[in-house]
This record gives sequence, structure tokens and C-alpha cells, in this order.
Amino acid sequence: MASMRQNKAKGSKAERELINLFWQAGWAAMRAAGSGSTQYPSPDIVAGCANKKIAIEAKFTASSTTKYFAQKEITELQYFCDKFGAEPWVAVKFDKEPWYFFPLHDLKETSKNFAITLKDAKIQGLLFEEVIK
Amino acid sequence: MASMRQNKAKGSKAERELINLFWQAGWAAMRAAGSGSTQYPSPDIVAGCANKKIAIEAKFTASSTTKYFAQKEITELQYFCDKFGAEPWVAVKFDKEPWYFFPLHDLKETSKNFAITLKDAKIQGLLFEEVIK
Repeated sequence: MASMRQNKAKGSKAERELINLFWQAGWAAMRAAGSGSTQYPSPDIVAGCANKKIAIEAKFTASSTTKYFAQKEITELQYFCDKFGAEPWVAVKFDKEPWYFFPLHDLKETSKNFAITLKDAKIQGLLFEEVIK
Repeated sequence: MASMRQNKAKGSKAERELINLFWQAGWAAMRAAGSGSTQYPSPDIVAGCANKKIAIEAKFTASSTTKYFAQKEITELQYFCDKFGAEPWVAVKFDKEPWYFFPLHDLKETSKNFAITLKDAKIQGLLFEEVIK
């Protein structure tokens, strides 16, 4: 079983690869400074092209079953996007899978979290190419 | 004379205050992850409201005379903005002065740098309120 440190490294690598995908597609993308650098909400990534801006809460998981997003993360993503003028997206990368993207209304609410299973991702998730259209 | 560490702390504080100004004005703003996190150009700050997006190269200086921006920083800022769809701005904060903003064509080119003096800033620089109009 991979250690926490290995998973964190894999998560950072996955985020850099996502940034890379945007630039390869002719968009610009950047990672936010670590949360805690200001008291204001911040997505993990913002990306844009001439006529579209998106903000992404991006999570990697070594699990092959379910990834959770806290209610607070989703609320803050929506708030940031309302002010900034961007589309909010959640992105999940299960190990050895591509990034899957979800608009917020597609997330399944549990008690305090939103859950995305790998099965859901494969059925409902959008691929990168579909998001940048 | 202040130490390097003190100046770095003052610079971070000044950047957080700038982020704060945007949120107070009803915009969203975020700081970029440290350069080196990806190989792609990244401004220090991106800020946006419904109908305007800007990317900022922001520098604090404890000097009261001149602040330099490297040619490469300006070129990369322009490149990011072209792809992202944002206005490029340079912002300088001299100690105990407000942030002053410059569009790129207002920068004075020296051999490998662009220089902004406090005197120039007071005459030509735009104040925050003017940038978010």
C-alpha cells in the first residue's frame, strides 16, 4: 500500500499533468498557492482561453472506489466562481485513470460530503476534451 | 536596514493586502503557486469579476527609489494573458506607499529590465480604484 507521502507526490504530479493538458490545448492554466495563504476561497486550478474561464477543485486518489469532496470545498468553489466569472468544475483522478470532470449539479450529496465513485466517473464524468470544447 | 527575511515577509503581507482589496471590491482574486511548480508561465495574482479578468506581476520593494522587472517576467506575463484571455498589469508597492499599477506599454525598458521609479509611479501609476473600473 502506498504511503501518504507517495500519494501526495502522485497527486501533485497529476495536477501538473492537468495543467500541462490545458497548455497543450492552447489554454493557460495555473495552480493556486496553498490554501491558508489568504482567508479567501481559492480553487486548486484556474484555466482560461479567450472566451471561457473555469475554476477547478482537483483531487487525486489512490483509492479505486470513492473520492469525497467536502461541502465547504464545493460552496467555496461556487462562491469564487460567482465573483470571478468562471465555470465551476470538480475533477477527480483515480490512479491509472484519466481525469474525470463534473459540473457541480452532478455531485451526489451525502451527509456532509459529495461523493464520486469510479463507476459514476466512468458513466457520468466528462473527459478533458469535452470540458475545453 | 531591514533584513531580506523582513522584506520577504513585508512582500507577502503586501500581496495578501492586494488580494484583500479585490475581494472587498466584489472581485475574486487568487495567488499563484510558487514559480517552479510547473514549467509554464504564471503571474503572481489573477483577479476577475463578471466582465473583466486581469493577471498581475506584483512586486514589493523596501527601496524608495527604483524597482526592476526582468524582461522575461514581462514576456511571460504577456504570453499567459494572451492564452488565458486577461489584461496584463504590473503592480509595484514601495514601502509605506499604495500599490501602483502599470499597463505594460508604460514600462521603461533598460538593457535587460524594465524599471519603475517611485517618482514615475506617483506620476504615471494607476491606483487600485482605477484598475478595477
